[in-house]
Amino acid sequence: MTPVHAGNLGPILAIDLGGSRIRVAHLGSDLTVAHREVIPTMPALGVEDALDRITTLARAVRAAAEAAGDGAPTAIGISSPGPLDPWRGVIHQAPNLPGWVEVPIADRLSAALDLPATLERDTNVALLAEWRHGAAAGVDHAVYVTVSTGIGGAAVVDGRLLHGPDGTAGEVGHLTVDLDGPPDGEGAPGHVEGIASGAALARDGAALLERGEAPRLAELVNRGSTVDASAVCAAADAGDEACRSLVDRAWSAIGAMCAGLVNVLNPEVLVLGGAIADHRPELHDVVRAEIRRRAFAIPAARVRLTAPHFGDDVSLVGCWALIHEMEARPR
Amino acid sequence: MTPVHAGNLGPILAIDLGGSRIRVAHLGSDLTVAHREVIPTMPALGVEDALDRITTLARAVRAAAEAAGDGAPTAIGISSPGPLDPWRGVIHQAPNLPGWVEVPIADRLSAALDLPATLERDTNVALLAEWRHGAAAGVDHAVYVTVSTGIGGAAVVDGRLLHGPDGTAGEVGHLTVDLDGPPDGEGAPGHVEGIASGAALARDGAALLERGEAPRLAELVNRGSTVDASAVCAAADAGDEACRSLVDRAWSAIGAMCAGLVNVLNPEVLVLGGAIADHRPELHDVVRAEIRRRAFAIPAARVRLTAPHFGDDVSLVGCWALIHEMEARPR
Repeated sequence: MTPVHAGNLGPILAIDLGGSRIRVAHLGSDLTVAHREVIPTMPALGVEDALDRITTLARAVRAAAEAAGDGAPTAIGISSPGPLDPWRGVIHQAPNLPGWVEVPIADRLSAALDLPATLERDTNVALLAEWRHGAAAGVDHAVYVTVSTGIGGAAVVDGRLLHGPDGTAGEVGHLTVDLDGPPDGEGAPGHVEGIASGAALARDGAALLERGEAPRLAELVNRGSTVDASAVCAAADAGDEACRSLVDRAWSAIGAMCAGLVNVLNPEVLVLGGAIADHRPELHDVVRAEIRRRAFAIPAARVRLTAPHFGDDVSLVGCWALIHEMEARPR
Repeated sequence: MTPVHAGNLGPILAIDLGGSRIRVAHLGSDLTVAHREVIPTMPALGVEDALDRITTLARAVRAAAEAAGDGAPTAIGISSPGPLDPWRGVIHQAPNLPGWVEVPIADRLSAALDLPATLERDTNVALLAEWRHGAAAGVDHAVYVTVSTGIGGAAVVDGRLLHGPDGTAGEVGHLTVDLDGPPDGEGAPGHVEGIASGAALARDGAALLERGEAPRLAELVNRGSTVDASAVCAAADAGDEACRSLVDRAWSAIGAMCAGLVNVLNPEVLVLGGAIADHRPELHDVVRAEIRRRAFAIPAARVRLTAPHFGDDVSLVGCWALIHEMEARPR
């Protein structure tokens, strides 16, 4: 792929390959999104068709930006779930797109749009946004944890994004917190993702329903709710004891995982976000208590637990940071 | 404290404050210990008396080295259990020495011996030895795990020793691997140290004995064994089912912890050492299997699990690496 050079400070095209939608946006140096296009992520679409669709969206965004006098983009930043190779710009495998295996997306979009392009894992992109422009600004040691359908993370160590030799570092959702716990999607037992992710809460809530142990959840479902993390939390709030146990254990598992990261990485800031964390402020209280209980006194006193600064646009802002922070990716 | 300057390539005095003994040694550039003195660690000794004893040993070692023509030491490297401040050279609290609180040991020994002195946590010192001269030589991403009375660790990330802002990073023994597990020494439940350390195996073995559930262990004790990790392992080998379960669960806990580190840090090498790991080669097999089972395919395929290169002298060699690798400690 054409490398992006530092000092390349013009507007950018940010491309976010999300689990449910693909977004293309134009960002200038004020980090606001003046132009954007969104399509749903269509698993049935082949790689070539999907790349064509993304290219078409990108051209539309670029044309709109230029017509409005907002400046021509000078680079493309791409955010995607992993595993991927950030240096070669290759998606090894896209969790929600079955045919996407070893796709050199940075090269392909770079050629199609005649702009340099850079790829990074979505959690790393989110942390770059928070670290350079948001809740973790100004520190050299930060951890980002996102709790939604899955649980993911990223870290900044000594002022540099933590990649490891394969770019896979930061996969905090696959820390074992319960040796006897349920399997996660990949089958390994007791990962925090298998206990406390949105998918895990939905799975365990459905099992309670089936056993008739969650009357409030049953009422919500009868009124049209799907059995998801939000419904399980609502049922717990409404008095379902079994749902309450499920949710309490999930929050404890996330707290134990965060406390472990505090002991291993000694971060100055821990940003805890994602759809579930954003909507359940009590999760922050539990995590804070578990850090006090489970981490050593010195790193526990050091770490500042905080919500993210950015909302829905975090990955778009993160693409800006990615393009303008290439020195954060040695090699 | 007087800073040690890089390029200071003469022989050194290595001082190892261990849980059971204090060692002072003279090392030259061939990393062999030509002269050494050892005393038992005496918890009853006050800080001043202990510093006097260490100074006396160091003078004896230096005199012997000079008399033998092995060169005058040019710096002091000090290895100690944490928590400590490596930049200021202050031991916050020595786990096995009750009176040692906020002891500026680097300054004190530097003044007493008229040499620059540098302090580092024992696990970091051990990893420095292995990374610069041993089993993890030549890589930029390494993890060190030691399993003995306690469980500790250290990491090299992007070619630099991982410290965090307080120097406490790398405390892998306090990762929670079992939400419902037994408390460790500090009272937090389910840390790997509370399940799988030598102290934990001894505690749980003693409980089995008391309940009459470990006949082979009882025989060993009747023949004079103390109830320690080694006896519990021997009883498991001899057919005690309850001891076998204990040991199997301990090894799984260590494997789960290592798999988590592989996911979070994506290391090229994981050095697994310490008295227990060194004497139980099957632990390496269990850890390898748990990494395959619990870590993502890419980092699991990357990591090379290995025994340490250095034995008993690892902390002395590590002091050499510490003095000659100051650039590994930014700030």
